[in-house]
Amino acid sequence: MTVSSQYVIGVDIGGTNLVVGAMPGDGSRELGVIHLPTLAKQGADAVVARICEMIDTTIATVMRETGATRSQFAGVGIGCPGPLDREKGLVILTPNLGWTDFPLRDLVSGKVGLPVVLDNDANCATLGEWWLGAAKGGRDVVGFTLGTGIGGGLILGGRLLHGASDVAGEIGHTTIEANGRRCGCGNYGCLEAYASGPAIAMRAREALSNGEPSMLRDLVDGDLEKITAAIVYKASGQGDAIAAEVVKETARFLGIGVANILNIFNPDVVVLAGGVAQAGDSLFVPLRAEVRRRAFKPAVDACRIVPGALGGSAGMVGAVAAFLAEHPVA
Amino acid sequence: MTVSSQYVIGVDIGGTNLVVGAMPGDGSRELGVIHLPTLAKQGADAVVARICEMIDTTIATVMRETGATRSQFAGVGIGCPGPLDREKGLVILTPNLGWTDFPLRDLVSGKVGLPVVLDNDANCATLGEWWLGAAKGGRDVVGFTLGTGIGGGLILGGRLLHGASDVAGEIGHTTIEANGRRCGCGNYGCLEAYASGPAIAMRAREALSNGEPSMLRDLVDGDLEKITAAIVYKASGQGDAIAAEVVKETARFLGIGVANILNIFNPDVVVLAGGVAQAGDSLFVPLRAEVRRRAFKPAVDACRIVPGALGGSAGMVGAVAAFLAEHPVA
Repeated sequence: MTVSSQYVIGVDIGGTNLVVGAMPGDGSRELGVIHLPTLAKQGADAVVARICEMIDTTIATVMRETGATRSQFAGVGIGCPGPLDREKGLVILTPNLGWTDFPLRDLVSGKVGLPVVLDNDANCATLGEWWLGAAKGGRDVVGFTLGTGIGGGLILGGRLLHGASDVAGEIGHTTIEANGRRCGCGNYGCLEAYASGPAIAMRAREALSNGEPSMLRDLVDGDLEKITAAIVYKASGQGDAIAAEVVKETARFLGIGVANILNIFNPDVVVLAGGVAQAGDSLFVPLRAEVRRRAFKPAVDACRIVPGALGGSAGMVGAVAAFLAEHPVA
Repeated sequence: MTVSSQYVIGVDIGGTNLVVGAMPGDGSRELGVIHLPTLAKQGADAVVARICEMIDTTIATVMRETGATRSQFAGVGIGCPGPLDREKGLVILTPNLGWTDFPLRDLVSGKVGLPVVLDNDANCATLGEWWLGAAKGGRDVVGFTLGTGIGGGLILGGRLLHGASDVAGEIGHTTIEANGRRCGCGNYGCLEAYASGPAIAMRAREALSNGEPSMLRDLVDGDLEKITAAIVYKASGQGDAIAAEVVKETARFLGIGVANILNIFNPDVVVLAGGVAQAGDSLFVPLRAEVRRRAFKPAVDACRIVPGALGGSAGMVGAVAAFLAEHPVA
């Protein structure tokens, strides 16, 4: 990616929130960043309209703040939950948004009058962390995105690996228990069924079912349905024994997923992005220990396992990088 | 790889057998192929001496049969159980051969007076199947080698993926049961602990422990320690119910391993090489069904899952290809 007097827009489409921002081609700063609810329930047209409005607002803000002209905007990168058909610019299926074979790329491109590159949201987050975040300098990088689901991205020599049909990187949907918990994808025993945000909350509720005292109940005013992964981490950080045990188990499951990736892919960086990554040492220390127990020593020694550094911006930054990978700007 | 008037020697080092042969640079035929026991118990010097003698014999045979001169031999590729340090030409550890930080490349190169390239045995088998076997034409290829252990190799755009420390592709040592069987590597629940040859034999012995009648007992004259994976496949093929159940379970475990690879790597070919691959439809039909149940549809649709076509030659052929990848011959 070259230093540029041009700007690229990044769009991160989440099930809950949209993030839109702009960056110069050298990635030196984030400009005109907007966070808004996705409006998933209002249907596809409303979501696309909102994305395009946000892009226009970001462009206007950047023009005002930097004096750039409209011709200095090279295009738009969009990170979207997959699976996607990148060649055709389609979103094949996103249960959360209700889209099927949805021509997102051309719809947005037509409305904003700029070229658009579509990529998977977890791919974008991984690419963002590699470009400007915690995986900077890595050659072979694997990203785990931990949130409502568990996504992943693989980077080889600075390029995302998309695979034969744009599905590569679905680490959350690898089996770690042959006869394990049912996953939203229909499979049994997926990593996501144990270590996604909702799975962590579910395991916490299960752990409370024997009636032992726990701060978790107080933190949700007794309504256990309100337990989230963030609340579990908070209670664990404050010394709650049940929450600490849930975090330890989470570290163990994630450690299995990371160890599997180390033995298959032998990366030099594994970056864990998303909300869970903020859990800090209480998660990362036992997670790294589990990886050491399970993966080959040369693979463990060659790899740093780090939390993401870009927080909620990773997907937007990576969407800019995904655009630049297809359309280098001068 | 270019058509050539030069020849490359391939060496496949197994725990039981050594295979050495030569091929012209275009891979058009196998010449002077020799199979001999490895002599692992006689120590490293004996194994290296035998490899070098076999190379000399192969060279002499090719010279006699083709009229080639010694100068037409470009070098030697060696496939060896890992982990390896390819840059230094070391075998870091092979429990079966008792080698630790063993400078195999330079020892062989010094004795035979030719450049030597070292690579992992499963990488070589995968590369062989991609170059001339069942994975020909594939772009992103994953090979599973099924035998005493389970190895693997990943090919991206015609190049082996070695990873940050030459460990990439250790698919046999990925966890498919978080609290599963102890594996030889020290980990619990590895694919290898369920679907390697010895693991299949062990599961068959366990299945016989309730005393139900089975042809398996007759095939080993009542000595259950003599059961091998090949015998299980044979009994299953002849209609033995217990053996058939063991094969079905094997297909399920391998199907989990293959499905995980499809969701992570999204290859266009998965090739299963080694003895187990000869089991045919009784293994491959339920294996493919398990993959369909577990992996994402676009990944399943994009991938053919096939048995290896080169049999016991895959490693030797792939060792030739590994040499050619580093030293293209004209």
